[in-house]
Amino acid sequence: MGSEREEAFDRLASLAAFILKVPLTIVSLISDKQQFFKAGYGLPSPYDQVRSLPIDESICRYTLADDPIIAGDAKLDPLVANQPIAKTLEIAAYIAIPMKDHRGYVLGAFCAIDTKPRAWSSDDVNIMRELTKSVMTEIHLREQLRELETEKISRETVVAALTHDLRTPVSAAKMASAALQEPDIDVEEQKQMIEIISRNMDRADRMIHDILDASRLKAGEGVP
Amino acid sequence: MGSEREEAFDRLASLAAFILKVPLTIVSLISDKQQFFKAGYGLPSPYDQVRSLPIDESICRYTLADDPIIAGDAKLDPLVANQPIAKTLEIAAYIAIPMKDHRGYVLGAFCAIDTKPRAWSSDDVNIMRELTKSVMTEIHLREQLRELETEKISRETVVAALTHDLRTPVSAAKMASAALQEPDIDVEEQKQMIEIISRNMDRADRMIHDILDASRLKAGEGVP
Repeated sequence: MGSEREEAFDRLASLAAFILKVPLTIVSLISDKQQFFKAGYGLPSPYDQVRSLPIDESICRYTLADDPIIAGDAKLDPLVANQPIAKTLEIAAYIAIPMKDHRGYVLGAFCAIDTKPRAWSSDDVNIMRELTKSVMTEIHLREQLRELETEKISRETVVAALTHDLRTPVSAAKMASAALQEPDIDVEEQKQMIEIISRNMDRADRMIHDILDASRLKAGEGVP
Repeated sequence: MGSEREEAFDRLASLAAFILKVPLTIVSLISDKQQFFKAGYGLPSPYDQVRSLPIDESICRYTLADDPIIAGDAKLDPLVANQPIAKTLEIAAYIAIPMKDHRGYVLGAFCAIDTKPRAWSSDDVNIMRELTKSVMTEIHLREQLRELETEKISRETVVAALTHDLRTPVSAAKMASAALQEPDIDVEEQKQMIEIISRNMDRADRMIHDILDASRLKAGEGVP
């Protein structure tokens, strides 16, 4: 989720601005330390570069209570009116819709901001709600992609490491069988070498079992 | 892509209907045989159930030429006016935006349909264009997810099958080493058993190499 800017979210932000005819929209992610501007339309300098705000200066953080905030005149709202950001961004009216993930956590808010007081219509609010759902669908799909990628890499690494380790018992058995072919080997050494082969094959067998476990397919299951 | 209905696309279709104030929107996928109604808002019976149309009755297919179709009065357009579907759906005006994938192929069209002739505004067209991009972003993300899933399963199956096969040389070497421990084994048999061990260990070695190849990580690369 972090810091990369996503073109698709900028597009939804600019669509919201276009439909609601507002100069500023922001897709914000909120952590315990800061509000991060994931995407937006009309963000003025320096926020288009800095793209974050300490959490105690954030207005969006109030959406973490899970309720949309709909303010027609921000000056009447003491939570907002006293924030420096309200002055910097000339926030006179705003809608903030909580961005809730599929587990019900609020990750941030999608905000539409006007520089003049304004009576928001129910259409305005509905459109913001629906666009927020699109943002969340995309965030969810991107998360799933990232999880699959990570899982794939870690599984591959484990399987490759286990497989690589299999070389050790195979090499040991190979060397022992080469020793057995020496013409001057005595009976005691011969016994030792056979012992080595037997022990290493047991070990290889257990390792194969572990690899099949790690690749989540037990022997015989799903194997063509 | 096929036949499953996606809630997220229905949501975008209903958002388009809501913003443009049209009674009908359709997200269609077009193949050489049919137009498939992937999602939509206001689709009347039987199309809400059947959800497809033979390709020669499709109007959307004309978007395959890669151009949006913007028709304020469908009766004036001979391509549309003569189609039975235009009558059934009471198509009097429509916008059809081609749904182009990231490789540039047109997969279908996102259509807004009105039952009265109507002069579409440039805002109407822009909103349809932007919502079509959101549909395509989601389709692309879903495709990537599907590809990763398929690739993961096929790779796992190959690795599991190869690993499973490794049991054969290991078992052969194990049995040969057990035979070597028999007190009454003669020199000729002993030679044969050592030969079997040596041959099977070479085979196991090659198989390990193949597994590392199949898991796309050669020995030593990326192994912790």
